[in-house]
Amino acid sequence: MDIAIFVFDDMTALDAIGPMEVVALLPGAELKIVGKQKGQVRAGKGARSLGIVADYALGDVTAADVLIVPGGTGTRALVNDDALTSWIKNIHATTRWTTSVCTGALLLAAAGVLNGVPATTHWAAMDLLKKLGAVPTDRRVVEEGKIITAAGVSSGIDMGLTLAAKIAGEDVAKAIQLMIEYDPEPPFDAGAASKASPELRKLAIELISS
Amino acid sequence: MDIAIFVFDDMTALDAIGPMEVVALLPGAELKIVGKQKGQVRAGKGARSLGIVADYALGDVTAADVLIVPGGTGTRALVNDDALTSWIKNIHATTRWTTSVCTGALLLAAAGVLNGVPATTHWAAMDLLKKLGAVPTDRRVVEEGKIITAAGVSSGIDMGLTLAAKIAGEDVAKAIQLMIEYDPEPPFDAGAASKASPELRKLAIELISS
Repeated sequence: MDIAIFVFDDMTALDAIGPMEVVALLPGAELKIVGKQKGQVRAGKGARSLGIVADYALGDVTAADVLIVPGGTGTRALVNDDALTSWIKNIHATTRWTTSVCTGALLLAAAGVLNGVPATTHWAAMDLLKKLGAVPTDRRVVEEGKIITAAGVSSGIDMGLTLAAKIAGEDVAKAIQLMIEYDPEPPFDAGAASKASPELRKLAIELISS
Repeated sequence: MDIAIFVFDDMTALDAIGPMEVVALLPGAELKIVGKQKGQVRAGKGARSLGIVADYALGDVTAADVLIVPGGTGTRALVNDDALTSWIKNIHATTRWTTSVCTGALLLAAAGVLNGVPATTHWAAMDLLKKLGAVPTDRRVVEEGKIITAAGVSSGIDMGLTLAAKIAGEDVAKAIQLMIEYDPEPPFDAGAASKASPELRKLAIELISS
């Protein structure tokens, strides 16, 4: 089972690594880490960035059983990248499951995959998602046919486990959840935009922009 | 604020990326991704692996405000690596916070950092942690002075937020939690070893060993 994960400069690493760690444990999983070109991309910016290696260029991968498109600030430039959006559209035509995490949904939308389709993204990008033709849906994981979109960053873990259950059944998904010891205990009840004060939203945006 | 994150072959990527994504949003954060040598390491094995770039070799980094040591199967060989354990010991002497996720605790223990210290690790490695001199403690995040250890894989996100609050205060930690939209909705209640059947534990071990 080929699992293609697109990586790019100024992506959010956790968007990709959350679901990756889950689906990599599926029996028969093979990861294809795909970039615009082969070689290193930098997740995040400057002194806060991490080098991730694209083992394949877009042209090297022409089909996949599962596509995972992560998000990050770098998506804003890529929505106008025809080589990428064509690739996503073509891969989507071959997949059993097409998925995104966070603003990865903007790339699916730019590729025409989400036209009129209920989907989710990071809370701060819902308007953009609508402009790109999707139907913004305020849930953590949104399933619509073979398309599964997840909300911001950490929601990719929940999406990955949902997907694992569809692919390999609930027992395997539960065993993966146990292996990654996903029994969350967030120290604060602060992760949902619907419950956040305007001040907290503002501070969050300032932190990501600084 | 220098945040050193050790990376190595056959590590578990999510162990490192979970807390990294949190602490990278702290004001003034600078990441130092450190390997045995500079260059690519492979998180995970073979067709299920991801290339991560070590920007620094051990000798390039002699102090850090925060040390994060992730886990993974690769730790088993590294507990006997004197160059690494000496480095951890020396960095620990300079830190404000020394942390581990999952079996990263085995590396802290091998460096002598956890002698007689309450600490946690992945549920399947508690016995090994004890053999290396720590006092295994069955909590998701264990704080003991400046040392914070986290349980398996995904617990590093909870640890990172706990650490963020200590470094920059609760408001900043809450804003980071909002930015990574950490409002978990695990599809199953299967992440805690204490609640898992022997059969589920066995299946989890088989998945990671296959």
